[in-house]
Amino acid sequence: MRLRMTIYGESHGPSIGIVLDGLPPNITIDLGAIEKEMARRVPGQSPLSTHRKETDQFTIESGFFEGKTTGMALCARIVNHDAHSKDYSLLKDVMRPSHGDYPGYVKSHGANDYRGGGAFSGRLTAPLVFAGAVAKQLLRQKGIVIGAHVARIGSACDRPFHPLGETDETLLHLGDHYLATLDDKVRAVMESVIRSAQEDKDSVGGVIECMALHLPVGLGEPYFDSVESTLSQLLFSIPAVKGVEFGDGFSLAGMRGSEANDPMTIKGDKVVTTTNRNGGILGGLTTGMPLLFRVVVKPTASIYQPQHTVNIKTHEETILEIKGRHDPCIVPRAVPVVEAMTAWALCDLMLCREREL
Amino acid sequence: MRLRMTIYGESHGPSIGIVLDGLPPNITIDLGAIEKEMARRVPGQSPLSTHRKETDQFTIESGFFEGKTTGMALCARIVNHDAHSKDYSLLKDVMRPSHGDYPGYVKSHGANDYRGGGAFSGRLTAPLVFAGAVAKQLLRQKGIVIGAHVARIGSACDRPFHPLGETDETLLHLGDHYLATLDDKVRAVMESVIRSAQEDKDSVGGVIECMALHLPVGLGEPYFDSVESTLSQLLFSIPAVKGVEFGDGFSLAGMRGSEANDPMTIKGDKVVTTTNRNGGILGGLTTGMPLLFRVVVKPTASIYQPQHTVNIKTHEETILEIKGRHDPCIVPRAVPVVEAMTAWALCDLMLCREREL
Amino acid sequence: MRLRMTIYGESHGPSIGIVLDGLPPNITIDLGAIEKEMARRVPGQSPLSTHRKETDQFTIESGFFEGKTTGMALCARIVNHDAHSKDYSLLKDVMRPSHGDYPGYVKSHGANDYRGGGAFSGRLTAPLVFAGAVAKQLLRQKGIVIGAHVARIGSACDRPFHPLGETDETLLHLGDHYLATLDDKVRAVMESVIRSAQEDKDSVGGVIECMALHLPVGLGEPYFDSVESTLSQLLFSIPAVKGVEFGDGFSLAGMRGSEANDPMTIKGDKVVTTTNRNGGILGGLTTGMPLLFRVVVKPTASIYQPQHTVNIKTHEETILEIKGRHDPCIVPRAVPVVEAMTAWALCDLMLCREREL
Amino acid sequence: MRLRMTIYGESHGPSIGIVLDGLPPNITIDLGAIEKEMARRVPGQSPLSTHRKETDQFTIESGFFEGKTTGMALCARIVNHDAHSKDYSLLKDVMRPSHGDYPGYVKSHGANDYRGGGAFSGRLTAPLVFAGAVAKQLLRQKGIVIGAHVARIGSACDRPFHPLGETDETLLHLGDHYLATLDDKVRAVMESVIRSAQEDKDSVGGVIECMALHLPVGLGEPYFDSVESTLSQLLFSIPAVKGVEFGDGFSLAGMRGSEANDPMTIKGDKVVTTTNRNGGILGGLTTGMPLLFRVVVKPTASIYQPQHTVNIKTHEETILEIKGRHDPCIVPRAVPVVEAMTAWALCDLMLCREREL
Repeated sequence: MRLRMTIYGESHGPSIGIVLDGLPPNITIDLGAIEKEMARRVPGQSPLSTHRKETDQFTIESGFFEGKTTGMALCARIVNHDAHSKDYSLLKDVMRPSHGDYPGYVKSHGANDYRGGGAFSGRLTAPLVFAGAVAKQLLRQKGIVIGAHVARIGSACDRPFHPLGETDETLLHLGDHYLATLDDKVRAVMESVIRSAQEDKDSVGGVIECMALHLPVGLGEPYFDSVESTLSQLLFSIPAVKGVEFGDGFSLAGMRGSEANDPMTIKGDKVVTTTNRNGGILGGLTTGMPLLFRVVVKPTASIYQPQHTVNIKTHEETILEIKGRHDPCIVPRAVPVVEAMTAWALCDLMLCREREL
Repeated sequence: MRLRMTIYGESHGPSIGIVLDGLPPNITIDLGAIEKEMARRVPGQSPLSTHRKETDQFTIESGFFEGKTTGMALCARIVNHDAHSKDYSLLKDVMRPSHGDYPGYVKSHGANDYRGGGAFSGRLTAPLVFAGAVAKQLLRQKGIVIGAHVARIGSACDRPFHPLGETDETLLHLGDHYLATLDDKVRAVMESVIRSAQEDKDSVGGVIECMALHLPVGLGEPYFDSVESTLSQLLFSIPAVKGVEFGDGFSLAGMRGSEANDPMTIKGDKVVTTTNRNGGILGGLTTGMPLLFRVVVKPTASIYQPQHTVNIKTHEETILEIKGRHDPCIVPRAVPVVEAMTAWALCDLMLCREREL
Repeated sequence: MRLRMTIYGESHGPSIGIVLDGLPPNITIDLGAIEKEMARRVPGQSPLSTHRKETDQFTIESGFFEGKTTGMALCARIVNHDAHSKDYSLLKDVMRPSHGDYPGYVKSHGANDYRGGGAFSGRLTAPLVFAGAVAKQLLRQKGIVIGAHVARIGSACDRPFHPLGETDETLLHLGDHYLATLDDKVRAVMESVIRSAQEDKDSVGGVIECMALHLPVGLGEPYFDSVESTLSQLLFSIPAVKGVEFGDGFSLAGMRGSEANDPMTIKGDKVVTTTNRNGGILGGLTTGMPLLFRVVVKPTASIYQPQHTVNIKTHEETILEIKGRHDPCIVPRAVPVVEAMTAWALCDLMLCREREL
Repeated sequence: MRLRMTIYGESHGPSIGIVLDGLPPNITIDLGAIEKEMARRVPGQSPLSTHRKETDQFTIESGFFEGKTTGMALCARIVNHDAHSKDYSLLKDVMRPSHGDYPGYVKSHGANDYRGGGAFSGRLTAPLVFAGAVAKQLLRQKGIVIGAHVARIGSACDRPFHPLGETDETLLHLGDHYLATLDDKVRAVMESVIRSAQEDKDSVGGVIECMALHLPVGLGEPYFDSVESTLSQLLFSIPAVKGVEFGDGFSLAGMRGSEANDPMTIKGDKVVTTTNRNGGILGGLTTGMPLLFRVVVKPTASIYQPQHTVNIKTHEETILEIKGRHDPCIVPRAVPVVEAMTAWALCDLMLCREREL
């Protein structure tokens, strides 16, 4: 059975949660490792992050017994605390620009829970990180390692991953810092870019680069269940992600085939390529080379400057000044979410592969 | 019921085809319009395209009766002609670089139909264009218009779509030329870029930009069934597509929120934005503004230069010189495929919307 | 979008629950009516039922705002109280006959939560009744009425539904009694059958008959999504259901076509049949006649008599004497579950029908 | 990946066919064995069957290369011959009783292909038998054997399967006769029951019993993907099937738990039950005991006697006398279809089981 993820919850409801179906039974899960993953996403870790105190403490409601998966639906639940619902009361009718408020209002015929973005809230990424943390543990048992870093914030860029691979250690320790970078020195530069935006009551976007190592050859299917299709569907589920590119991505538009094709060779007993412009995917299938892709994260939509918008009740233009606590840059906290969605997709593809009768 | 697309076939098998499930009944379909769409994808239209003569003539096997859909499974079938299988015999063991040959071989334990890429062949995009042509006709009945153009080939760029929209006429007439561009003058430049690659026994990549107009507000779902998720899953099904970006896409990484947010205002009786950096999608839902995105198409993998690769049987390195007939640039023929996948996804989202009891 | 139901939970875990996806937005839901439905399933209503005190009080965690559905995932949660886990400790290794203990143990490689049947427990039908109660309210807004009765317990039989239909009132008031029957007098007979089994430390099975009125013509699809397929998939989800028959069901084996065919005629402006041996379904689609079917419920597997079984650890035969509190007859409490699954399936089919573009 | 079956086609269209997705690669398939299975379903084998000459000769269009599955979509196609469309012209407006004509007309807003039942035709079971024949070969490689017999026609009954199992040989040779029975003597009795109905321009129904041997323990899931749910969804896809019961089925209503529970014991190194009233399924999972169930097949709806029905155009009552060639009893030809759907469901459950990471 393919893995299935079902999320529920609104930012200001009693709880948010996730149900994971299709996990194999009898797998030992380290809850501490899950907590550590979720702590990477939690707000308030840095002066540059929102001061909201979402503790993101989860309880497991089912599917986990005496330290192991049972193979039945695994449900995790996170109680909502510290929700300042009154901060949002003026947002019932005034649409926040670049948020889902307006289409969400129309879609629900005005019945949506507008508080804090409701079901559209980025808070729903907390259960996604939970799912990813479980998937990561399953993948690690097969030797597969995933890591992502902040490749860019505004004009500040980290060095890119080496397309032929990094060490496992490098990928596994990226999450040690709130601002996950390969180059330690670039971290301070990025922080100053964020601080500068914060001081201007503004926000800033960025790029996250992700790599997975030691994948078997031949995961995925041609066409609708290609690795790119499977991954992008989940990556575009992450709020604020507006682009996904694999391997050399958009740069391939300016290349010729003689440059873009990855020559093949033998290395020991393995078939490898000497470049990796295709990001470890050919014909929609993994090639055994490092899986490599980038996503772009738009600047946080909630900024403290006055903005032109509309009141949906009066149908009039108005000026909105957003209150509340918002990250000037969401990119660092999106890194574990990107890793989580990658882990989930790869875990699904691994389980699909096992279709020997 | 959500729409469902099932494709089958290999490049050199008896036929390829598609089964469309979930279409509404009693819809008049113009077969001539479908043929016209499919002619846009067919090879051999231009001296710059392969000389393969795929006629792509389809027969409808079911689901269509007396000029209308019946609401039952609609199957279209295209017989394979002109397949020079012997051209591929040497490719049984020698893996073409940047094709799916190697992972396809491993995945199937060596049982794949290797001739012409088998089930991985770009030829399977013919039935996709069929599906898209049906979807387009359904969408037109609701006033929705889709158009795509070649935004870039190598270093040659067309002018971009205006983010606030083009006229319906502009979008509808893009397909009149093999090389669909907004700027007539850029066409010759692009042709010379392709010809130059062709003369060098090489190939070249590009970018396709796509727009959809007159969509209702609120299509899509937050998270896993977002408009971006639904579209990207299908767009990454198209062979050679390696990146997808919505609205300003990767440029958003360098922006601040004050620049990236689309201010909202009232225009007549409609809520609109005065810019469209989000490409007509917020919170995963359509906003009513033009839907706008770009995909990158890598250079054709099959080039006539000698290439380093491996023989999977002998497990040795070898040099491959590809024979056969291949496009030096697949981008122009990918334009109708991008439109097709967009039409299919939007048609699905439209049908999902109708869930009033 | 088709409706989707996701359940989680084990009998002795912290909670059980359900996530409903695909509900239309802006629908007023009467929570009191849901509570009333759930009270019909709850144990301990009758001296003939178990004395377990499952209160089955639910909280709605998401998807419901200011009295209406939001159209987002609707999650309901029921906290587990009164779970006497120690009653089950001896069942870790000793398999209860006719329960899912043994295959559940093998399937999970011994990692299942064995307490109270774990994820296999009939307790999971509580969230199903919740889902059905929501679906019933949606159907009522379209005039559709569902009702089920205890058609048989042991040798005691209620009168059957009239195949051409009962009054709405009759169907709506069946749930007024713990033992839902059409004939008031048969209730006492059935009670004595149950009491007799109880006194013998035994249990007894039965048949439930269900009817739905005022369905539109043409719900369902031929073949895999037929009304019979859709309904039976859900009905066989109910623990202890071992058979489903539509219309005259197994009796049709002894009939000739001239007897089994339902003659058609005109009544007012409607096309009707003068008999209803097909139970309101032809070609997998609703005909507009009353939907009619029966399910058989096997006797409660947990009986207090000594039973031959095996110890899975020692791999030896043993005698089991079950403790705890168990219904001598589960049939009356299964009636609202059958109605719930019927309501959910019909609601799904209604929403699927709305696929005009 | 779960197996997926997609059928298309109408009785009088150019072809009917099926696409099978999710089959494992590199499996040798014996086409002769498939032809033999399909010959069991084909009409005209017996004087008691219709004289229609459907040859049911299939071609494989994809997914099969050099004698083996490739793991890609396997498409089989059957060209429609001998379709006497004019026989059906009067049926455009006159609804055949107990056929899907009327709901099919309403569902499609009158756009259905009414000839020969269109997409509702029993002819679509031919591709189902193809799918089942492939699945059977996969199952045989794991030692699993499936067989079904005609348990009853009208009042004539075959002896039932022994609930604790038959020999493999018995099951494998049931298909040697057009009228598959365990007891050779009952065959002539059943034939006379059918002939008698035929002489009366009438038809007759029956019961099919099916068994599967050597299944592993623990296939299926509790609740929605139970073995009963999975099987019944497919079994009710077969036209004319109106009831499904597992193990002792509806007889369980009259039993007590002490009688209905299957005592467990050890036999060699296996856990077995000494009776099999649950038909090899507990908690929705296989127990390792023989899988056992029965389906009821209603009498052929097309009979030659005058019948009361309606003209949907004139909205008037009328008398219909059906022409054409119809089986007086469809039961014998439904036997291989029941086996096919069973094989497909079990193959799917087997592939789902393999979810070790």
